[in-house]
Amino acid sequence: MFYHDRELQYKVRVDKPNPQFAKLLQQAIGGIEGEIRVCLQFLFQAWNSRGPMKYRDMLLNTGTEEISHIEMLATAVCLNLEGSSSVLKDEMAASNPMISAVMGGKDPRHILSAGLGAMASDANGVPFNGSWVVSSGNLAADMHANVMAEATGRVLATRLYEMTDDSGMKDMLSFLIARDTMHQNQWLAVLEELGPGTHPIPNTFSQEKENQTVNYTFFTTNIDRQDPTMARGRWSEGPSIDGKGTFRQEPAAPIGGIPNLGPPDKETHAQREQMVNSDGSFIEKVKDIIAG
Amino acid sequence: MFYHDRELQYKVRVDKPNPQFAKLLQQAIGGIEGEIRVCLQFLFQAWNSRGPMKYRDMLLNTGTEEISHIEMLATAVCLNLEGSSSVLKDEMAASNPMISAVMGGKDPRHILSAGLGAMASDANGVPFNGSWVVSSGNLAADMHANVMAEATGRVLATRLYEMTDDSGMKDMLSFLIARDTMHQNQWLAVLEELGPGTHPIPNTFSQEKENQTVNYTFFTTNIDRQDPTMARGRWSEGPSIDGKGTFRQEPAAPIGGIPNLGPPDKETHAQREQMVNSDGSFIEKVKDIIAG
Amino acid sequence: MFYHDRELQYKVRVDKPNPQFAKLLQQAIGGIEGEIRVCLQFLFQAWNSRGPMKYRDMLLNTGTEEISHIEMLATAVCLNLEGSSSVLKDEMAASNPMISAVMGGKDPRHILSAGLGAMASDANGVPFNGSWVVSSGNLAADMHANVMAEATGRVLATRLYEMTDDSGMKDMLSFLIARDTMHQNQWLAVLEELGPGTHPIPNTFSQEKENQTVNYTFFTTNIDRQDPTMARGRWSEGPSIDGKGTFRQEPAAPIGGIPNLGPPDKETHAQREQMVNSDGSFIEKVKDIIAG
Amino acid sequence: MFYHDRELQYKVRVDKPNPQFAKLLQQAIGGIEGEIRVCLQFLFQAWNSRGPMKYRDMLLNTGTEEISHIEMLATAVCLNLEGSSSVLKDEMAASNPMISAVMGGKDPRHILSAGLGAMASDANGVPFNGSWVVSSGNLAADMHANVMAEATGRVLATRLYEMTDDSGMKDMLSFLIARDTMHQNQWLAVLEELGPGTHPIPNTFSQEKENQTVNYTFFTTNIDRQDPTMARGRWSEGPSIDGKGTFRQEPAAPIGGIPNLGPPDKETHAQREQMVNSDGSFIEKVKDIIAG
Amino acid sequence: MFYHDRELQYKVRVDKPNPQFAKLLQQAIGGIEGEIRVCLQFLFQAWNSRGPMKYRDMLLNTGTEEISHIEMLATAVCLNLEGSSSVLKDEMAASNPMISAVMGGKDPRHILSAGLGAMASDANGVPFNGSWVVSSGNLAADMHANVMAEATGRVLATRLYEMTDDSGMKDMLSFLIARDTMHQNQWLAVLEELGPGTHPIPNTFSQEKENQTVNYTFFTTNIDRQDPTMARGRWSEGPSIDGKGTFRQEPAAPIGGIPNLGPPDKETHAQREQMVNSDGSFIEKVKDIIAG
Amino acid sequence: MFYHDRELQYKVRVDKPNPQFAKLLQQAIGGIEGEIRVCLQFLFQAWNSRGPMKYRDMLLNTGTEEISHIEMLATAVCLNLEGSSSVLKDEMAASNPMISAVMGGKDPRHILSAGLGAMASDANGVPFNGSWVVSSGNLAADMHANVMAEATGRVLATRLYEMTDDSGMKDMLSFLIARDTMHQNQWLAVLEELGPGTHPIPNTFSQEKENQTVNYTFFTTNIDRQDPTMARGRWSEGPSIDGKGTFRQEPAAPIGGIPNLGPPDKETHAQREQMVNSDGSFIEKVKDIIAG
Repeated sequence: MFYHDRELQYKVRVDKPNPQFAKLLQQAIGGIEGEIRVCLQFLFQAWNSRGPMKYRDMLLNTGTEEISHIEMLATAVCLNLEGSSSVLKDEMAASNPMISAVMGGKDPRHILSAGLGAMASDANGVPFNGSWVVSSGNLAADMHANVMAEATGRVLATRLYEMTDDSGMKDMLSFLIARDTMHQNQWLAVLEELGPGTHPIPNTFSQEKENQTVNYTFFTTNIDRQDPTMARGRWSEGPSIDGKGTFRQEPAAPIGGIPNLGPPDKETHAQREQMVNSDGSFIEKVKDIIAG
Repeated sequence: MFYHDRELQYKVRVDKPNPQFAKLLQQAIGGIEGEIRVCLQFLFQAWNSRGPMKYRDMLLNTGTEEISHIEMLATAVCLNLEGSSSVLKDEMAASNPMISAVMGGKDPRHILSAGLGAMASDANGVPFNGSWVVSSGNLAADMHANVMAEATGRVLATRLYEMTDDSGMKDMLSFLIARDTMHQNQWLAVLEELGPGTHPIPNTFSQEKENQTVNYTFFTTNIDRQDPTMARGRWSEGPSIDGKGTFRQEPAAPIGGIPNLGPPDKETHAQREQMVNSDGSFIEKVKDIIAG
Repeated sequence: MFYHDRELQYKVRVDKPNPQFAKLLQQAIGGIEGEIRVCLQFLFQAWNSRGPMKYRDMLLNTGTEEISHIEMLATAVCLNLEGSSSVLKDEMAASNPMISAVMGGKDPRHILSAGLGAMASDANGVPFNGSWVVSSGNLAADMHANVMAEATGRVLATRLYEMTDDSGMKDMLSFLIARDTMHQNQWLAVLEELGPGTHPIPNTFSQEKENQTVNYTFFTTNIDRQDPTMARGRWSEGPSIDGKGTFRQEPAAPIGGIPNLGPPDKETHAQREQMVNSDGSFIEKVKDIIAG
Repeated sequence: MFYHDRELQYKVRVDKPNPQFAKLLQQAIGGIEGEIRVCLQFLFQAWNSRGPMKYRDMLLNTGTEEISHIEMLATAVCLNLEGSSSVLKDEMAASNPMISAVMGGKDPRHILSAGLGAMASDANGVPFNGSWVVSSGNLAADMHANVMAEATGRVLATRLYEMTDDSGMKDMLSFLIARDTMHQNQWLAVLEELGPGTHPIPNTFSQEKENQTVNYTFFTTNIDRQDPTMARGRWSEGPSIDGKGTFRQEPAAPIGGIPNLGPPDKETHAQREQMVNSDGSFIEKVKDIIAG
Repeated sequence: MFYHDRELQYKVRVDKPNPQFAKLLQQAIGGIEGEIRVCLQFLFQAWNSRGPMKYRDMLLNTGTEEISHIEMLATAVCLNLEGSSSVLKDEMAASNPMISAVMGGKDPRHILSAGLGAMASDANGVPFNGSWVVSSGNLAADMHANVMAEATGRVLATRLYEMTDDSGMKDMLSFLIARDTMHQNQWLAVLEELGPGTHPIPNTFSQEKENQTVNYTFFTTNIDRQDPTMARGRWSEGPSIDGKGTFRQEPAAPIGGIPNLGPPDKETHAQREQMVNSDGSFIEKVKDIIAG
Repeated sequence: MFYHDRELQYKVRVDKPNPQFAKLLQQAIGGIEGEIRVCLQFLFQAWNSRGPMKYRDMLLNTGTEEISHIEMLATAVCLNLEGSSSVLKDEMAASNPMISAVMGGKDPRHILSAGLGAMASDANGVPFNGSWVVSSGNLAADMHANVMAEATGRVLATRLYEMTDDSGMKDMLSFLIARDTMHQNQWLAVLEELGPGTHPIPNTFSQEKENQTVNYTFFTTNIDRQDPTMARGRWSEGPSIDGKGTFRQEPAAPIGGIPNLGPPDKETHAQREQMVNSDGSFIEKVKDIIAG
C-alpha cells in the first residue's frame, strides 16, 4: 500500500523558465528511458514477484522512490513553463511565414492540452506506452532490464545536464544522476548475489536441449571483399562468459533448404493465378475456381 | 549492403499444423522480446556506430543473422496455419452462443488480414513498435539493452519450447535458443572487453558533478509495521559494484519542500476559481476576469 | 514524495484460480477505464495544480490511493494465474486443429512475456497509453474527466463482478466498487463547490466572444422521411443548463460556401493534371511543368 | 445513413496563412480533445444505443454535425499552409547549424506526407487513436464522457483563439466555441433529464453489494508533518452528492496483509534461485531443476 | 457539410447472434482494411483536394457513403452480441482451469468496455490508428492508396463471407462486397482518366534528375547456389510499364564505400572507450575525458 | 537467409551537416512511406508467399535491397547530425523565452535518446508501427499495396529533394528516387503479367454472390443546391474498368430501415432509464432492477 508526503524528495528550482527545456524534460518523464517506465517496471516486478520475499521488498522501495522522481520532473516542467503562454501569443502575433522563427523547440500541447503543465509523453509528444514495462517472471532477466533502463536513463540525464545552464535544473539533475548511479549498482548487485551460474538466462532450461553446435559460435554474415576478421573480439575466441562453452567464429551458411508452403487455401481468396503448386502445375481442387 | 540466399538458415518443419501455436510464435516475431526488435536494434546500433570500427562490424554480422531468424519464424507461422481456414469455417458454422468453444487461442487476423501468413505483430495482434529499438549512442548502454533483449528473448523461446510437442518446432526452437545463448554471451563479452571502469554508464560524465550524498544510498520508502530490514542484500552494504563507493541504507525523507507553482496564466483559460494565489488570496491581474 | 507499506490496502483472495478471469482483470489495470490511468491522471493533476492548494492536496491523496488499487489488481491477476502454465501445456499438447477448444479467452502473454504475472496492458493485451492521462490545467474540465473515468471505471468493475463466482474476487471487487462510488461523489463535490457559474467551461473566456446565434441551438442534421421531432428532449427547449441562454432547435444548414483551395504548390509534386485552377483552367506557373 | 452538401457549415477564412497555426489546429482535428474523437464517439454511442430511441436520434444529429467541424478545421489547415512549401525551401537553403532558426513550430509532415493538407493527427503529429472513442453501453457514463470531451475541447478552442490574431481564424473559432457551449449544455441536459437517481453510475448495480464501510470515505494517504486537514472540502463531510451516504474522512491504513504468491511454475523458466518458497526454503518439486 | 437519415443504407439482419463473429466484424470497422480508414481517407483527400474540383466532389460522395457502411457494421456487431453477456457469465461460472474451453474467440471488451456494442478497434481489440489515413496531396498516389484499401478491404469481406452461415450476415456482406467492386473500379477509372503519363508518380518531378543508370534495373541480391534466373518475369526485360525505359536485370553490388562517422560528440556522453577515431587512435579532444 | 557487405549500396555524402534535414530524413526511414515499411512488407510477402515460386524470389530480392536503403538513410541522418550537440548547447544557453528561436525543426531525441544517431521513427518522432506491413495472402492486393507504398515513397523522396541544396544529399536522393521509379514499374509489371482478369480483387470470389444491383453504381450522397452532376467522370458511365459491368450514377437512398437493438442486457449494467423497449415501454425483466 502507498502513502505520500506533501513535500518533494529534493528541491526543484528554476532560475529562468525555459519552455524548450520543459519539452526536453518530458523525455525523462514519459519517454522509454523515463521515470514512469522505471516506476511501473519496478512496481510490477515487485507485485509479480515469486520466490524469496526480499526481492519484492527491495523492488517496492525503489519503485516507490521513482514516483517521487516523476513528481520532481513534472514540477520542473511546470516551473519551466511559467509565463510562457503570453510570450507565445506575442510570438504568434508577430510571426509571418517569411520569418517563421517562433515556437521552435516547444511542445505546443504544453499550452493547448496541459495549460502549462506536464504530460505523460516524451520529448516529441509521443505518449508513454505500457509495452515498455518489463516484468518477465525471471529475476535475472528483470535485473538486466533494470540495468538497461538505468543505463539509458542516466545517459539521458547527463545529456539534459549538458543542455541547460540553469543552476536550479543542474542541481536537480545532479540529484537524479546520483540516484541512477545507485540504481545501476543496485541491479548489478542483485546479479552478483545471484552468482556465477546466472547465465545463460533462464538457467532452469537444461542446456542439453539446445542445439550444441551453434550455442557458442559467432556467425559472420559478411561476404564482402574486405578482411572478414575485422569483427574479431572477446566474443570470437576463448571461454564463453558464462563459463560453459568456448567461443568460435564461423561464416554463416544455410542448412534449412528452400521453404515450400502449400498452395493457398480456397477460403482465403488468394488470386486465381496463385492457385497452383510452387512448381507451377495447377492443383486439382482449384479447377472449379479457375472455371468460375 | 545486404544480400540473401533462397534457403533458410535452419530447417523449419511442422509435423502437425497448429494455428494456436502460430499465434504464440508471433510473440517471437513482432513482440517486444521478438526478432524484429533485435534485428533492427543491432542494425541501427551498427549504422549509428561511432568509435572503433570493429563494433560496427560485429553488430552488422549479428543484426543480419537476425533477419534470417525472422524468416524462420515467419515460415513456422505459415506452416502452422496450413489448412486452418477450412477448419475454422466448419467451427464457425457449427458454433452457437451456448457452446462457444471455437476459435479459442487463434489470431483471427491470421486468416482475415494475412490469408494464413505471418504478421509484424505480437501474440495478441499488437503491432511491432519502433520505440523498442534502442540505439543510444553509448556502447555500454547499448550492450546492456542487447543483453536484456536476448535474456527476455531466450526466456520467451524456452516457454514456447515447453508449449509444443511438435518435434519440428522443438528442433527449430532448440536452434534459436542456442543462438540466444551465444548472443547473451556475446554482448557480455563486449562489456568484459570494455573493462572494469564501465560503470556507472556513461563513464564520460564526471561523477564529481553528481550529488555525493545519495549516489550509493539504498533508500527505503517502507513505513510499515514490519521489520524494515527485510529488503537488505548485497545492495545495502559493502563496496558498490562499480568499485567507486560504498553501499549504505537510509530511510527516504523529503528535503525538497512543498512546491508552489504560480497562478494560472490568463491565456490558458483555467477556471475563474483557480485565479488565486496558493494561499487563497486573489491575484491582481485576474480582477477583470472575475468581473467578466 | 511517496512511501509504501508491505501490506495490501484490502485483502486479495482467489478461491479457484482462473486464467481467463486474469485476462479480464487486465482491463481494470491497463485499460482506458483502468487504475493506471486514474492513478497517473490524479497525480499529474496534482503536480500541475495551480490555484488553491487544497485541490493539490486532495488529488495527491486519491492519486496515491489508486497505486494501492493497481497493486491489488496485479496481485489478483497473479493469483488467478497460479498453476496455469502446466495446464496450458497439457492443453496445447492435446490440441489438434479439428478440436481447437483450448486456450480460449486467455492472454498468451501472461505466460510468454510475464511468466504468470500482471502486465501494463488491457484485456486484449493492448498496452496502456499515456494519452489517456488528462490534466488540462482547467480544474472543472479535469473534474469532469475524473467523473468520466470513475463512471466508466465503476461500470467496468460491476461487469467484472457479474462475471465471476469466486467469492474472493467478488469481495475484492466489492471494495473497489465502493471506492468508485466515493470517487464519483468526490469529483462531483468539487464541481458543486465550484458553484453554479462553472459552465460553460472554461468560464474565464468571455462568452461575448463566441458566436451568439448558435451557442444554445440544437442543430438537427436529420433529413429523412420520419418525424424530425423525435430527437426532442431537455436539450431542445427551455433554459440552458448553465442558466445563460435558452435552448432552441433548428435544422442545420450550410452558410460557409464551397471551399476553394489554391492549386498545388510546385515543390510538393502533385500530379501534373492537378496543376490547374479549380475551374479547370491551367495556371500560368505550371506551364513549364506541363512541358517537362 | 449519411449525406453531404458541397458547402461548409460555416465560413473558413484565413487572412494570412500561417503554417505554425496549421500545426496547432491539428490538435483540434486529431488530438484527444479533437473533432474526430467526438464525431466517432457520438456516432458509436448512437449506433450502439439500447433503450429509448430518442437518445439514438439526438446522438446521430450531433455526431453528424461534428463531421462538418472536422471538414472546417481541415480546410483551415489547408488555407494556413498555402504557399508555405516554397518558403520552407528557401529557409532550408539558407539555414546552417549555427543559425538554426527555421522550421520552428511547423509540422514537417504537412509538406512531406500531406503535400500541404490536413492529417488525422494531433499537434505533435501523433496519430488519432481509436481507444479515445468511448461508448460504454451506459447512457450516464457516456454523457459524462461527452461532457468531458466538450469541456476539454472548448478549453482547447479558447487557447487556439488566444494564439491567433487572424480575424478569419478568430471568426471560425468563435463559431466552434459557441457549438461547444451548446454541446456541454446538451449532455448536461440529458443528465438532468435522467434525474437525481443517476449516481453512482451504473445505478443498476445494487449498492448493497458494495463494501459499506468505505463507499463514502475520503481516505488520506498523507503522512507528512504538515497539517493533514488541508485537503478538506465539500468531499470530506456532509451528505454525499448522490444523496445516498455521508462523507467522512479517514487516514488510509492497510487491512489486506502481505501477499504471498506461490513459487514460480517450472514451465515458465524463472531463475533457479527463485524456485524457493517465500520464506527461503526450497520447494520439493524443483530439486531436479536445481540438479539440472 | 453533412446530414443523416434515421435508416440504414442496407438491411442488417442477424438470424443467430454470434459474439465470435462480432469480433471478426471489428476488423472491417476499425482494422487497417476497415471502413473507418477508407471513410476518413476519402474525406481527408476531398478536404485537402487541390486542382480540378470534380475530384473533391467525387471523393466527398464516396467518403460519405463509407460512414453509412461503418454504421451498418456497427449495427451488425451489436446484433451479434445480443444476449451474449448472460451466456458468458454462465460459461465463466462453469469454467475451471482444466477445461478452459470458454470465451474462445470473443472480444472481452465487447462486454467489459462497450456493454455489447461496437468499438473503434480491430478484430484483436487494437485501436484504429490515424496513421492509416493517406492523403498525400498527389492525386495519383492517393488513387493507388484507395485501390489498395478497397482491394484488401474486399479480400477481408470475402473472408468474412466464408466464415459465416448466417443468411442475414451473408446478405449484408454481399452488399458491401458489391460496393467494394464498384469502388475498386472507381479509383482505377480515375487513373485511366489521368492517362498514360501517370507513372512514375509524381509525374511533375523531372526524371532527368533521377539517377539514369538504375531507374529501370531489377537488382538481384541473391547469392545462393541455385539458378539466379528464377526471379525473372515481366519486370526483368522488355519496355517498362510507364513506357519510359527498358527493364534489365543486374546483380546488386555496392558502390558506396564503407561509411565512416566521426567520433562521438563530447556532450552526448558516449563511453570513454568510444572516444577514438575509427582506426583506433585517440582523438585529441577527449584526452581530458580519458583523464577524468 | 541473409548476408551483408561492409560497404553501402550507394555513396552517402553530406557537404554541410544539417540537423533539421536529419529530422526530415526520418520520415523516409520510420514513416508510413518509409523504407522500414517497404522492407518488411516485401519480405513478409515473400515469406508468406503461396503459389508460383518466382514471386517469392522476386520479393526477396527487392525486400533485401530495401535493407540497404534503410542503411543509407540512417547513415545520412548520422552525417547530418555531426557536431550538432555542441551547437545546440550553445543555442540553449543563449535562449530566453523572449527570443525563442532555437532548436526549431530539430528532433530533440536525436540527441537525448540516440546520441546523434538515427531512430526507427518518423519525422515527428512517432515510432514505426508494424500495422503498416501489408501481406494479405492475395498477390494482386499485395501488388497494389506495393505500388501505393512506392508511389507515396517517391512523392516523399522528391519533396526531400526539393528541401535541400546539399549536393551530397541530392545525389543520394537521386539514386533512391530512381529505385522508386523501378519499383513502381516492377509491381505494375506483376499486375500486367497477372492479366486482364485481375479485377475485382480477389478474383476467386464468384461475383454471382455479390449484390448485382449496386456493384457498378456510383452513389451520390450530395443533397445540396448545386448541380449534382459535377462529380461525373470516367467512373459514372461507360464500361467498368474490370470489363465486367457498366458504370451508372444514382442518388444514394436508404433501404435498410431503422435499426432496433434490443434493450440492454441486465449484466452489463446500463442505467436503469435505459431498461425499456425502444418505444419507451418497460420491459418485464427489469422490474426488479427498477425496484432495486
